Amino acid sequence: MVIEPIVRLALQEDLGAAGDLTGEAIIDVNARGRWALRARQSGVVAGLDAASLAARLVDCAILLNIHKVDGEGVAAGQTIAEIEGRVRSVLMAERTMLNFVGQLSGVATLTRAHVDAVKGLKTKIVCTRKTTPGLRALEKRAVRLGGGGTHRYGLNDAILIKDNHIAAAGGVGSAIARARAYAGHLTAIEIEVDTLAQLEEAIPYAPSAILLDNFSLADMGTAVARMGGKIPLEASGGVSLENVRAIAETGVDVISVGALTHSAPALDIGLDAL
Amino acid sequence: MVIEPIVRLALQEDLGAAGDLTGEAIIDVNARGRWALRARQSGVVAGLDAASLAARLVDCAILLNIHKVDGEGVAAGQTIAEIEGRVRSVLMAERTMLNFVGQLSGVATLTRAHVDAVKGLKTKIVCTRKTTPGLRALEKRAVRLGGGGTHRYGLNDAILIKDNHIAAAGGVGSAIARARAYAGHLTAIEIEVDTLAQLEEAIPYAPSAILLDNFSLADMGTAVARMGGKIPLEASGGVSLENVRAIAETGVDVISVGALTHSAPALDIGLDAL
Amino acid sequence: MVIEPIVRLALQEDLGAAGDLTGEAIIDVNARGRWALRARQSGVVAGLDAASLAARLVDCAILLNIHKVDGEGVAAGQTIAEIEGRVRSVLMAERTMLNFVGQLSGVATLTRAHVDAVKGLKTKIVCTRKTTPGLRALEKRAVRLGGGGTHRYGLNDAILIKDNHIAAAGGVGSAIARARAYAGHLTAIEIEVDTLAQLEEAIPYAPSAILLDNFSLADMGTAVARMGGKIPLEASGGVSLENVRAIAETGVDVISVGALTHSAPALDIGLDAL
Amino acid sequence: MVIEPIVRLALQEDLGAAGDLTGEAIIDVNARGRWALRARQSGVVAGLDAASLAARLVDCAILLNIHKVDGEGVAAGQTIAEIEGRVRSVLMAERTMLNFVGQLSGVATLTRAHVDAVKGLKTKIVCTRKTTPGLRALEKRAVRLGGGGTHRYGLNDAILIKDNHIAAAGGVGSAIARARAYAGHLTAIEIEVDTLAQLEEAIPYAPSAILLDNFSLADMGTAVARMGGKIPLEASGGVSLENVRAIAETGVDVISVGALTHSAPALDIGLDAL
Amino acid sequence: MVIEPIVRLALQEDLGAAGDLTGEAIIDVNARGRWALRARQSGVVAGLDAASLAARLVDCAILLNIHKVDGEGVAAGQTIAEIEGRVRSVLMAERTMLNFVGQLSGVATLTRAHVDAVKGLKTKIVCTRKTTPGLRALEKRAVRLGGGGTHRYGLNDAILIKDNHIAAAGGVGSAIARARAYAGHLTAIEIEVDTLAQLEEAIPYAPSAILLDNFSLADMGTAVARMGGKIPLEASGGVSLENVRAIAETGVDVISVGALTHSAPALDIGLDAL
Amino acid sequence: MVIEPIVRLALQEDLGAAGDLTGEAIIDVNARGRWALRARQSGVVAGLDAASLAARLVDCAILLNIHKVDGEGVAAGQTIAEIEGRVRSVLMAERTMLNFVGQLSGVATLTRAHVDAVKGLKTKIVCTRKTTPGLRALEKRAVRLGGGGTHRYGLNDAILIKDNHIAAAGGVGSAIARARAYAGHLTAIEIEVDTLAQLEEAIPYAPSAILLDNFSLADMGTAVARMGGKIPLEASGGVSLENVRAIAETGVDVISVGALTHSAPALDIGLDAL
Repeated sequence: MVIEPIVRLALQEDLGAAGDLTGEAIIDVNARGRWALRARQSGVVAGLDAASLAARLVDCAILLNIHKVDGEGVAAGQTIAEIEGRVRSVLMAERTMLNFVGQLSGVATLTRAHVDAVKGLKTKIVCTRKTTPGLRALEKRAVRLGGGGTHRYGLNDAILIKDNHIAAAGGVGSAIARARAYAGHLTAIEIEVDTLAQLEEAIPYAPSAILLDNFSLADMGTAVARMGGKIPLEASGGVSLENVRAIAETGVDVISVGALTHSAPALDIGLDAL
Repeated sequence: MVIEPIVRLALQEDLGAAGDLTGEAIIDVNARGRWALRARQSGVVAGLDAASLAARLVDCAILLNIHKVDGEGVAAGQTIAEIEGRVRSVLMAERTMLNFVGQLSGVATLTRAHVDAVKGLKTKIVCTRKTTPGLRALEKRAVRLGGGGTHRYGLNDAILIKDNHIAAAGGVGSAIARARAYAGHLTAIEIEVDTLAQLEEAIPYAPSAILLDNFSLADMGTAVARMGGKIPLEASGGVSLENVRAIAETGVDVISVGALTHSAPALDIGLDAL
Repeated sequence: MVIEPIVRLALQEDLGAAGDLTGEAIIDVNARGRWALRARQSGVVAGLDAASLAARLVDCAILLNIHKVDGEGVAAGQTIAEIEGRVRSVLMAERTMLNFVGQLSGVATLTRAHVDAVKGLKTKIVCTRKTTPGLRALEKRAVRLGGGGTHRYGLNDAILIKDNHIAAAGGVGSAIARARAYAGHLTAIEIEVDTLAQLEEAIPYAPSAILLDNFSLADMGTAVARMGGKIPLEASGGVSLENVRAIAETGVDVISVGALTHSAPALDIGLDAL
Repeated sequence: MVIEPIVRLALQEDLGAAGDLTGEAIIDVNARGRWALRARQSGVVAGLDAASLAARLVDCAILLNIHKVDGEGVAAGQTIAEIEGRVRSVLMAERTMLNFVGQLSGVATLTRAHVDAVKGLKTKIVCTRKTTPGLRALEKRAVRLGGGGTHRYGLNDAILIKDNHIAAAGGVGSAIARARAYAGHLTAIEIEVDTLAQLEEAIPYAPSAILLDNFSLADMGTAVARMGGKIPLEASGGVSLENVRAIAETGVDVISVGALTHSAPALDIGLDAL
Repeated sequence: MVIEPIVRLALQEDLGAAGDLTGEAIIDVNARGRWALRARQSGVVAGLDAASLAARLVDCAILLNIHKVDGEGVAAGQTIAEIEGRVRSVLMAERTMLNFVGQLSGVATLTRAHVDAVKGLKTKIVCTRKTTPGLRALEKRAVRLGGGGTHRYGLNDAILIKDNHIAAAGGVGSAIARARAYAGHLTAIEIEVDTLAQLEEAIPYAPSAILLDNFSLADMGTAVARMGGKIPLEASGGVSLENVRAIAETGVDVISVGALTHSAPALDIGLDAL
Repeated sequence: MVIEPIVRLALQEDLGAAGDLTGEAIIDVNARGRWALRARQSGVVAGLDAASLAARLVDCAILLNIHKVDGEGVAAGQTIAEIEGRVRSVLMAERTMLNFVGQLSGVATLTRAHVDAVKGLKTKIVCTRKTTPGLRALEKRAVRLGGGGTHRYGLNDAILIKDNHIAAAGGVGSAIARARAYAGHLTAIEIEVDTLAQLEEAIPYAPSAILLDNFSLADMGTAVARMGGKIPLEASGGVSLENVRAIAETGVDVISVGALTHSAPALDIGLDAL
């Protein structure tokens, strides 16, 4: 249900009105074949749900035999799934399937790298709303498959107070107060602060979480000590594989990393005839 | 028309049914503001068309004053566009706009880097069908804005004969023959070959173009010499910024680079209140 | 954006493929007129946003002059809005507009009655997911306009652990533990308990809120005393205008009322020619 | 086909992009279960078609074993259907299924009460276009299941001349004449009259039916006597369970009741684990 | 509203994901122009509403200056509308606009020919449900513009009893009786008969209309005489411009002609630069 | 995938919100039957894919037993397919199925007639973009089934330079040059010329094909001789079954015929109970 619109859109843009000219020109209408979906790089598999749906929408008789489920690690050369069906159908679905699995496995793989980088520490790696248009549900899920968590899904499921809101409300305190008056009993309220001074302003209003935006490592450490575990602290801004462990070692509870979704290179995956 | 479905999908996934909780909680319903859409890195701008549509679908009274048009270069710190309107509306559209412009400017910027790398040579850099699901039209356009060209748009606008097709047809020659019998007078026929021997098989059938898949630089050079400009040659497989110029120097006409669309990191772009 | 699909669906089901036979048969194509949208009962106005969109989709030249904004009280006979435009267009949109405003004002009005019934107490009245299919966003908003709040919007924005989940997890504690392990730092976790004994089981796991399902007034009082304000308590089950104040007087923080959305009678509203 | 859009919309608004957080957090991915869909009040069942479609769209392997078909009476405590499937899937579809069945059984039940109230008389109870946006086809069908009939489905399937049209045409007679000139040979023409004088004006033009709008019981009786069965008479305006029999006893052929669809309280139905 | 889906579909199939390659390659982005939409054959204009919407969806700044409104006659060489706007936009919309106007003017023109053929007689020419998939609303309207009327719009707005139904019900009489028991007071009931004997069976049940299917002219005359004007008679089957007047002269009330919509040749219309 | 939107649209316009009144009134809900889809005229079958999908969308238990596959010839009276299923379902899908098969078989049949008319010559008959809105993919396929080929599918898959473009570019040569600079290596470029002089201008720029628009037979012959087979020549304008062979005999490679899709009369096909 949830992913069907983007899968349909992806098929439409590859098939247009004319469909697969090459397959129709050359492949016998009844020819059948078998293929292996194989990783050409090691990584974490994701996107098989979307790829399966793409196959089914093209031809519900295509069979997928999954060897590596979503979230499993895969080494270069290993088979992720075997596919069997009419040759015309599989070639029609091939590129769309590969695009989903490649893109989403890329997200899961990059997440896993970040999660591994903070191994042994309590800090959680989460993604943001900086997702590829149309792929939010799939990318958020890929992050989870890679071992990460999520921030808000959208503007609609939690309150996150930023500089524009603080300015509009006339201060940190009144912004949180307005949010509380509006929020339901299940709506979390997080506030983004730029300085330790703003952090002090926020504490008395007891938000659900506080986001330290572009803090230095030293200031993060100070903030963690000041907070003493009472309110979860999130770090964001300029996070990379190089500095993520140092940030986690300051003791922040959550590190949000936009790059997990907006800049993950695709995992190289191909379809080989068997 | 063409990009409206993906823009609507992107807005829906950020707004859900509840809309922007934070804005509704804190921002006065009539408050207005001005913002600058600013590059935080240098690059090539793309995606303003999608961002403008996102703004208009949220609130048709949001005004955009474009400083850098799609395809223009931008330096870190420069303003791409000024935006004015109801604060609630702009905050509602902000992330979707940034996601489009960031992702697509990333594609345009990576394309420009490849194009610059082959400067002075006749070789064209083109993208493939390895695009992000849902974004094909936008990414193909971003590649063009970055100075690149395009391969097929989809399975529907040209014939590309690959290994599966050759196997099904029983050889290179019969595959091209079947394609020609099927094709309209405006349908190009390209064939992908893996070896110089296959190249020889293809030449007598005069395809519109020949794709040299994962050829060594030496073999590419041999192929170019053999061809003598009579049929355009395309190189693909394992192309990167590091080796693209060397490939171009073999004299191939076209280099197709999947990474332009499947692995471009987003360009860092933000929205600053004025 | 968010409400457009249901407004289009509503217009389609009233217009079919043939459109308004009566208007086309009888009304001159250029005739213009003015109407008052009038309450025939007192209540709270809601749904003008949907009605306005319906009008605009039929004919973007229909003008609405709003006298009572969404959320305002209206007495029987008072004008909510004046409408001006081509007679054919207004008659085409009339029933769809009235259905939205009538249905949603009914929700807002019933909510206001519950809110008034607990006046002076701290308890909040909220709606549930027992909404009319297709109208969730509009009905949740109508509840807010009537002075109420909201529970979860959907399955997607908070965790609510019920009997099925407790059974699957093997107990209250392990259910909350699983939820916490899964939840992001902004995801609230509420648990529904049937007895005071279950309440005791839940407390050590510190959920974000506890739902007392079908508790007697006496047990609610005991629960409130036991809790001492540390975790918000929600009452649900069999709430009506008759007993809502007695429930609120037990000291629970939130009362959720499915009837606000699933059983509100429409407010009687009509369109009178001027 | 016809009901699929509203069922998809209902699922989308409950699942959003994130899906069912609670189920994913707590329920084992392979766990299966059985449930009974049970009435907690007596009434007439409707909406099982929509509920079945909702289940199938979530997971086509959910099994429904229907005990009470649409239109059958059900007593409090009785099982309407047994449901079996993956726990995660059923919990994902549960609320949407219950909302459809509850809402539509409410309509069928209220209709049955009106139909029972006029038992033994020839008068037919019908619903109007005052339906819930998006649910017209389902509500019209629920009315039929409750023993009622229908008026126009929409503006598109019959002509109903009201005050605006009479004014535009310059009188009752010319309005009917214009309608006749426009109507196909299968298009019925009904006219709404406010007074006995208007009724007299209409009679010579032989409309297919005449609607007596807000007539007193006495005037209805006079109209019935005057008409002598030659043209069907419909009564509307202010109809309730209290006065519907008295109205029917005047001898009118049809009574249209907007409240059947716009104000029916939902029937209380729940899902119990077995 | 009603025609938007088919207009969007038509544009999508002409533009695909890549848009207008030729325009983008050759036409300056800011170039503007003026064109005349001209008939190359005489006929009746229809489809300007769809063409205008197509233009607006491509570029809302395209201006249409209508010289001949829908339903007006046009001679070869006359201008139907002048169009002004960005050259790229107009060329992008051109073919879609022409396809709508050509196809629908063809329907209106063929209808007018049939209507003219029965001039002076009371018989009405109507179309059927044998319409082009997706174009029913537009084609029914084109028939009206050509002076014809309509039969049922769809299966949903009147009852038409055919041979399958008579067989299922066990006879003409019981079929009509079942229909009457089901029908609302505004639902017309027509029955199709194959012989004069069946006509006799139908008469006592007083259907709203009777369809004489493939009757000889002689039998039609007999039926008309027998009926004496009490129930409208419709003729259908094998109607053409050659025999339509002879059929009308038998005195039938309605002649339904499938060819008006399923076999009308397009009217030749072109776009000339000014 | 590709044809689903138009098939859904066609069903929606026939079923509306109320569905099939006649079937529901008269046919027993469990009654089953068998029918033959029979040609009443000889021709070439097309559209069975769309008809099958229509049947499946109405009721996935309808069985089709195909006797004549798409593209096969059929004589008057022959059975194209046998259909079995619930009577209500089949009657609900009947008209939509027939409209697709009738319309598309009409296209295939008219194409076959043109192809037969040029038998023995090398000239290919192709269709244009003058297709019925919404049916392009289906009509292009029907043309192929009838033995024809296709021109561009849409504006998006090849470049066709016409008078507007030549004027904008300032001449034939510069228009082709601009097109070449823009085109990818798989994009064909055709130019439309009105005179032999324009043909001369075009030749040095080596377009992929040249369209001779409204040339006399004599001029076509001159053009063919001049060209000597180096660039494919297409003839268009005023082609009919009467003159198509004479045109082909001039030696042009391709004749494009708009009438194949915009003016093909439907093939007469009916559904007979067995």
